[in-house]
Amino acid sequence: MAQNIKPYLKKGAIITDTGSVKQYSLQEIEKHLNKDDGFVIVGGHPVAGTEKSGPENGFASLFKGRWCILTPDENSTPEAIAQVTQMWEHCDMLVDTMQAAHHDKVMAAVSHLPQLIAYSIVGTVADLEGYEHKEIIKYSAGGFRDFTRIAGSDPTMWRDIFLTNKQTVLELIQRFVEDLIALERNIRWDESDKLFALFKRTQKIRKDVIEAKQDQPEHEKRLLEENAVQTNVDNKK
Amino acid sequence: MAQNIKPYLKKGAIITDTGSVKQYSLQEIEKHLNKDDGFVIVGGHPVAGTEKSGPENGFASLFKGRWCILTPDENSTPEAIAQVTQMWEHCDMLVDTMQAAHHDKVMAAVSHLPQLIAYSIVGTVADLEGYEHKEIIKYSAGGFRDFTRIAGSDPTMWRDIFLTNKQTVLELIQRFVEDLIALERNIRWDESDKLFALFKRTQKIRKDVIEAKQDQPEHEKRLLEENAVQTNVDNKK
Repeated sequence: MAQNIKPYLKKGAIITDTGSVKQYSLQEIEKHLNKDDGFVIVGGHPVAGTEKSGPENGFASLFKGRWCILTPDENSTPEAIAQVTQMWEHCDMLVDTMQAAHHDKVMAAVSHLPQLIAYSIVGTVADLEGYEHKEIIKYSAGGFRDFTRIAGSDPTMWRDIFLTNKQTVLELIQRFVEDLIALERNIRWDESDKLFALFKRTQKIRKDVIEAKQDQPEHEKRLLEENAVQTNVDNKK
Repeated sequence: MAQNIKPYLKKGAIITDTGSVKQYSLQEIEKHLNKDDGFVIVGGHPVAGTEKSGPENGFASLFKGRWCILTPDENSTPEAIAQVTQMWEHCDMLVDTMQAAHHDKVMAAVSHLPQLIAYSIVGTVADLEGYEHKEIIKYSAGGFRDFTRIAGSDPTMWRDIFLTNKQTVLELIQRFVEDLIALERNIRWDESDKLFALFKRTQKIRKDVIEAKQDQPEHEKRLLEENAVQTNVDNKK
């Protein structure tokens, strides 16, 4: 894309993007649009969205109160950073700045690993032998449905995220498996105190998320509107 | 509880429960309340709820269109089964019947394993060294927050579920780890087609859940009401 748009850009234009992985995409962009041609690049990532991709799934309050992370480098001018910041602030976003490498590390933890786990568990549960697919779907209100929502996200986008933030994602998978095996051991040996302590701790983390106002009222609202049609249909079909 | 309530029960009373694990709880109940005393036991599990426990978190439409699973045994009379079925139908539930052992197997897949994974990943992400806790919370809209919601569930209830449905849960953890390691390998070796195929498949499973009307409009609605207060506060504090 950087290569394709180059002939149409003004000298001195500010280039920004909205990609989920910053080191890889900025390296690629800078191959074609660099400071020798007068371009100023300021990487950006608005951390907001739902499991639905594409412009038709946007809504007015999508960015409201969410964080946009800018990842300027040594060639990003203060003026360009200020302008990109202002653009996102006009969309009601909160703007933060960090190194591209740090961004990719933080996102691997709060976004890429959770997403991969959701894909993985939906695959596992759907493939279990001795279970009927229709039973799994029928009783999905037991918890499974929450993971299917996440695992309903755009396959192309997520394939590319995992492959372009590979090293950090691979490291985090190892950490996760290590912790899961420890938990498995707690269950096997009836270490109920350890289970209880972890579950208490995660409950506290949930409270932190709510206090930081990063829970998803807008998203819920949208789903509600979509589902309003559905609930008018007889549920007992 | 079965022992404690026994003196207050009429001869011939129908006993039912709402526990999430049926083999263990029915065995325990039958130690104290059995057919020799004239009691008729019909195990039950209404598959509905949110991450919030306790009567104060109930709401009128909690059970509407959700499935209740009854697990009668050879001593449950047809009359008793019919009466318990009717009770749940009065709450707008759909009622299904299966063996207690099969119930525990299905629930391990659609509920217990997903819940354990949510607890585990929230613990892993919160403990990563080299990450600041406040960053993890701040950018939790990237996906992590969905897992914190699930991992905010009642610690006591979930500890007991894992310990009383232990064997099936342990087996499923092994299956999950096996699949996750395969996925890790796909990422390491850039097997993009395999990643894409899995993600396409999970997207289809999501569609099945929505078509089966087991997604959560009522829950979303409730969260929305709760969050209405929150959104009136300035988000930029």
